[in-house]
Amino acid sequence: MIDVVQLASALIAAESVTPARGAVFDVLEAALWPLGFAVERFVAGEAPDGPVENLLATRGSGRHLAFAGHVDVVPPGPGWSAGAFEPVIADGLLRGRGAVDMKGAVAAFVAAAARVPATAGQLTLIITGDEEGPATYGTVALIDRMRARGLLPDLCLVGEPTSVAALGDMVKIGRRGSVNIWIDVPGRQGHVAYPHLADNPIPPLVAALVELDALVLDTGSDWFQPSNLEITDVTVGNPATNVIPAHASARLSIRFNDLHRGAELAARVEAIVRAHAPAAQVTARVSGEAFLTEPGALSALVSAAILEVTGRTAELSTTGGTSDARFLRALCPVVEFGLLNATMHKADEAVGLEDLAQLTAIYERVIERAFAG
Amino acid sequence: MIDVVQLASALIAAESVTPARGAVFDVLEAALWPLGFAVERFVAGEAPDGPVENLLATRGSGRHLAFAGHVDVVPPGPGWSAGAFEPVIADGLLRGRGAVDMKGAVAAFVAAAARVPATAGQLTLIITGDEEGPATYGTVALIDRMRARGLLPDLCLVGEPTSVAALGDMVKIGRRGSVNIWIDVPGRQGHVAYPHLADNPIPPLVAALVELDALVLDTGSDWFQPSNLEITDVTVGNPATNVIPAHASARLSIRFNDLHRGAELAARVEAIVRAHAPAAQVTARVSGEAFLTEPGALSALVSAAILEVTGRTAELSTTGGTSDARFLRALCPVVEFGLLNATMHKADEAVGLEDLAQLTAIYERVIERAFAG
Ligand SMILES: [Zn+2]
Ligand SMILES: [Zn+2]
Repeated sequence: MIDVVQLASALIAAESVTPARGAVFDVLEAALWPLGFAVERFVAGEAPDGPVENLLATRGSGRHLAFAGHVDVVPPGPGWSAGAFEPVIADGLLRGRGAVDMKGAVAAFVAAAARVPATAGQLTLIITGDEEGPATYGTVALIDRMRARGLLPDLCLVGEPTSVAALGDMVKIGRRGSVNIWIDVPGRQGHVAYPHLADNPIPPLVAALVELDALVLDTGSDWFQPSNLEITDVTVGNPATNVIPAHASARLSIRFNDLHRGAELAARVEAIVRAHAPAAQVTARVSGEAFLTEPGALSALVSAAILEVTGRTAELSTTGGTSDARFLRALCPVVEFGLLNATMHKADEAVGLEDLAQLTAIYERVIERAFAG
Repeated sequence: MIDVVQLASALIAAESVTPARGAVFDVLEAALWPLGFAVERFVAGEAPDGPVENLLATRGSGRHLAFAGHVDVVPPGPGWSAGAFEPVIADGLLRGRGAVDMKGAVAAFVAAAARVPATAGQLTLIITGDEEGPATYGTVALIDRMRARGLLPDLCLVGEPTSVAALGDMVKIGRRGSVNIWIDVPGRQGHVAYPHLADNPIPPLVAALVELDALVLDTGSDWFQPSNLEITDVTVGNPATNVIPAHASARLSIRFNDLHRGAELAARVEAIVRAHAPAAQVTARVSGEAFLTEPGALSALVSAAILEVTGRTAELSTTGGTSDARFLRALCPVVEFGLLNATMHKADEAVGLEDLAQLTAIYERVIERAFAG
């Protein structure tokens, strides 16, 4: 038997601000070996997005459930009652950076695995040291490695903190896509007293931004809220009050549902910008496409486990930011379920000891139900 | 007799990047004493806009003509064939920083004064060391000093380089006003995945900017081109692609004609901004109101002198940037006439030796005609 609070505490104590390597993986590996897992660790990537450590652990055969997560954490920031990497147990809580996002869930899954016979089915842990960072060499590298090893799970559970007000109230069955778009409008510099000799790039840019801001991309879909475009930056950088600038630029972020693809949205933005500023440069980076694991066997299985342990009926949701589920969906059906997200990325991040115990029980039932097929 | 080329060269050789003090004023003072001028020099202001040296010189009595100008220069910048402060005479040109803007004109006026009897009327030179800088302690301080001394000219000629293609083709009889306006729109920061929890300040700002850019302030007036509004900067300064920013700001520059006052335009801008963003902060700084010396005795006198010397009929204009004429207008009617502006503020700034001679002759006739009344 593994004490979930003890393992979570040990993981928290192994400081692991993203990108993470070393000690935190030592702690995890030491917990997995005795449970019969074959553990493989590897370092991928180079600066500035790497190097990053990743861990792949698997045991058993038959029906194959994967659990995905990360042991890196965001920087502690100010405002902690005690050291962010000194786990404190008090008032029924375990406090420390990573308690809910998501060392607590990793510990719960390992503890759950310890309760299930190694021969009951195949379990794989997909653990990265770079989920909070650019994620260039994290889960993407793990998926490459799994494909090379022929490790192809039937189902995947991501342990991100999806619960909102009480453990089990929300399961995520998809995520919106995300695309960032950079716009640069060139002009011709000049003196404000002689505007006819210059070409101010700001008016066409702001006209394009007004049109883009007014776009209604959709009104939502079956499982998704409406897609949303935000203008996140505008930059001219002209310190001189009497100078018409040579360039004006802006940046957009679109979170979009399953009615769109990132490239289609980028093309649409580019057409609008070009209508106002034919010489504009428009550059897009799609962080992830929208995806949905249609409610079915996997979400039903997780919901049933939650109901059994907590008595709660989980809401199936596609809200919120991106997660590594956007990569894992390429392998097999993916849902996300984990601890309460109220304190994630904040000072005094903490998890209820009772929540850790219940999450372990839920994960245990998820494993059993997944193996039952 | 004063050799205008020699005096201009000596002024150029006295390096005097704005704000100017010392040597360049020594050169000018040494030229003025022998001509019967009472010369007063004083230093005004403190850092960062000062200290600045100014010079006031006067002689004679009766009809009173003032000549205003500056002996500071803009920094040389790159690209000079030889040292910017080493005057070179070659190919019929005198080259060096300040040759046309406006040490050449100062030299020409002193040389012209030398040709006119000291008893023919009152001549005052109003010379600052800070026209190219913020001008806080330059001509404004000189005007205060003149008022305190009871030095109140009947007419004022500013020697800025107003000629465009040939000496005498343009005289400035007014200038547009100028107001800079800063707009800051506050919002509420948040994550792009949760826009309902944030308040993006960029959409109301760009909507206001589009409306401001579309404003038709007027279609020009008798002696002025239409007023013009330029958006000169937009700043958000948000490096994070997934963050909705807390502030967005912009800056406008309006050059306006005699149909407007700076404060009225600022109020109009503020009303438009507030309609889009009620919490916006709008701050205005009026650099100068528009002014016009209605074509009349003074412009006729200068035009007649130009016609007599060059055979050219000067165009009366109100175009271009601001000048210290915006302050001097409070004293008496003011017009501006000087050398060709083609090389001003550029590398290898140069004045034609023939232009210096002709300008001296024109200024001489202006003095005579002014004294004739
Ligand atoms: Zn996380
Ligand atoms: Zn000048």
